[in-house]
Amino acid sequence: MAATSIIRSFTLECGTRLRNVPVAYQTWGTLSPAADNVIVVGHSLTSTPDAADWWRGCLGPGKALDTDRFLVVCANVIGSPYGTVAPVSLNPATGDPYGVNMPQATVRDTVALHKMLLDSWGVRQVAMVIGGSMGGMQALEWAFYGPDYVRGIVPIGVGGRHSSWCIAWSESQRQAIFADPGWRNGHYNPLDPPVAGLAAARMMAMISYRSFGSFEQRFGRERASNGAFNMETWLRHHGDKLVRRFDPACYVYLTHLMDSHDVSRGRGRYEAVLQKIRQHALVIGIRSDILYLLAESEELAEHMPNAELAVMEGSDGHDTFLTDQAALNDTVLGWRKRVIDPFVLHRPLRKVAS
Amino acid sequence: MAATSIIRSFTLECGTRLRNVPVAYQTWGTLSPAADNVIVVGHSLTSTPDAADWWRGCLGPGKALDTDRFLVVCANVIGSPYGTVAPVSLNPATGDPYGVNMPQATVRDTVALHKMLLDSWGVRQVAMVIGGSMGGMQALEWAFYGPDYVRGIVPIGVGGRHSSWCIAWSESQRQAIFADPGWRNGHYNPLDPPVAGLAAARMMAMISYRSFGSFEQRFGRERASNGAFNMETWLRHHGDKLVRRFDPACYVYLTHLMDSHDVSRGRGRYEAVLQKIRQHALVIGIRSDILYLLAESEELAEHMPNAELAVMEGSDGHDTFLTDQAALNDTVLGWRKRVIDPFVLHRPLRKVAS
Repeated sequence: MAATSIIRSFTLECGTRLRNVPVAYQTWGTLSPAADNVIVVGHSLTSTPDAADWWRGCLGPGKALDTDRFLVVCANVIGSPYGTVAPVSLNPATGDPYGVNMPQATVRDTVALHKMLLDSWGVRQVAMVIGGSMGGMQALEWAFYGPDYVRGIVPIGVGGRHSSWCIAWSESQRQAIFADPGWRNGHYNPLDPPVAGLAAARMMAMISYRSFGSFEQRFGRERASNGAFNMETWLRHHGDKLVRRFDPACYVYLTHLMDSHDVSRGRGRYEAVLQKIRQHALVIGIRSDILYLLAESEELAEHMPNAELAVMEGSDGHDTFLTDQAALNDTVLGWRKRVIDPFVLHRPLRKVAS
Repeated sequence: MAATSIIRSFTLECGTRLRNVPVAYQTWGTLSPAADNVIVVGHSLTSTPDAADWWRGCLGPGKALDTDRFLVVCANVIGSPYGTVAPVSLNPATGDPYGVNMPQATVRDTVALHKMLLDSWGVRQVAMVIGGSMGGMQALEWAFYGPDYVRGIVPIGVGGRHSSWCIAWSESQRQAIFADPGWRNGHYNPLDPPVAGLAAARMMAMISYRSFGSFEQRFGRERASNGAFNMETWLRHHGDKLVRRFDPACYVYLTHLMDSHDVSRGRGRYEAVLQKIRQHALVIGIRSDILYLLAESEELAEHMPNAELAVMEGSDGHDTFLTDQAALNDTVLGWRKRVIDPFVLHRPLRKVAS
């Protein structure tokens, strides 16, 4: 079910209070009478809340995200153009879209907002929070609501804080957007947005999401009859595709939101903060990931006291969590049955009110 | 010595004939009477022919590029703004700069042009050709003039053909330049060039030249008082620095030139062509290189019959061949003394005529 709730008042980490904040989300399955069977799915940078679309191999009856036994929720993050408050939303103070004047939220903010959504339904326990990339950042932040509320987390292809390496990728993508004249310092004409800059940023991002091996295997040095390398054509296709479905200001905003990611901000020394994450955790790293290194997942698993590490061996780089869903589903399902299911009571279900 | 020679007529692989082609170069040391003591240095994408500047740890008396015993030559590649024919050169047919109408050259073309320069000096033997990145591509192409003429090659941080991975990096950098309105389809105003696009491209490139580890060690999540991550500031600095010294059309042109790199083009099956490179070769790979993988160097060394592999362990990624010159000098010097010096006669020296 796709829906939008309005949170009456919400204060960001930066201190700005927003009123009447829309939160878009989708749900699958039914909340148990004990309100303890929720699985929260965090989505990645440009994804929609329709996890059944981009994670269909993991979501459904009998799967890792078992819609027969759990209420699966995927809420849209702050700053995304898919329905939650974002630069494309109207600023109630001015009646115009926020654009670049949207106060900057953090990953922690978006998790706090999503928790208010669950609170409004009377949710008493989140069985697990799972997500890859930016979704994994959310899983880690959810943990700080405590192990009695969040039972387990599955952060995939992500570390506990955004590395300088990832900040560098973010910044050079932002600069590609800023180089487009259509950007106009963020005050772009919605009828003439900086599509070339956003496409270039997306092309860079697609490199970071894949790997040398996956490109070599698929494209090598093959050319089309017009002389262009198939590699170039594929990249341009992905650039063109994103600009038809994503907003440039939201893209810039969300890269800053990801750069904010640091579970230790205001909480103490990094390793000590990871030790405070006492939930059962399945930390999934991807060996071919060049953006969020396997070493970052290893570091999480090393310091989080109840974590297990699983390694995806697929060659598709960071995107392996999207391209090898069969392997991902098996790994998560096995862990969930063993570690999470014992926490969840299996009484008759009722529909969630929203 | 910095100088420019004019080659009267030069035909590119694409079939276009250029007339009165300038070739800029620098030399250090003296040509032997037997004209057999030349070391050719290939420079990388944005480097100048002043190898004594960017490779000062390897070039000089007693060093790997021993200016007491060899005539060291670094010629500027076709398409670079540092003096050889390029998009910034005047097209004699029109009297205007070539710009995007400059016929596209290949790595093979630029090596052929540089050989004509050496021919004009009466060079009988090249003792070795060395270069990193695009310079390594040149070293590999020089080998095809035969082992009696080129005695040894040292390709560093490069493969025998540009991978789809590298083509992807090239293309997304080009698209960042194209996204800048100042580009005007390549017909940009020299007084108002697409600096923002070129800077964004350079920032992307700087990511590809370094590594996760080098950024983490140096920047982590440190911020300046204005809130910007030091990582961002460093990247912007490098973007700004390049636009003051490089031309956008040359940048686009040279990325295409690198994408053309394939020693097997027109010569047969890739592995079989590598087997034809019978020179003594020191193939140097860099373990932390994410742009030209160590596996590509290993592949070269595996198939070239007289190659040895050396691995640089520095953590600076692709740029390690520039940042760890002490290690590089030691490795090359040891190999050169053992493998190359026996080929070179040590009679009294004479100055090169140019």
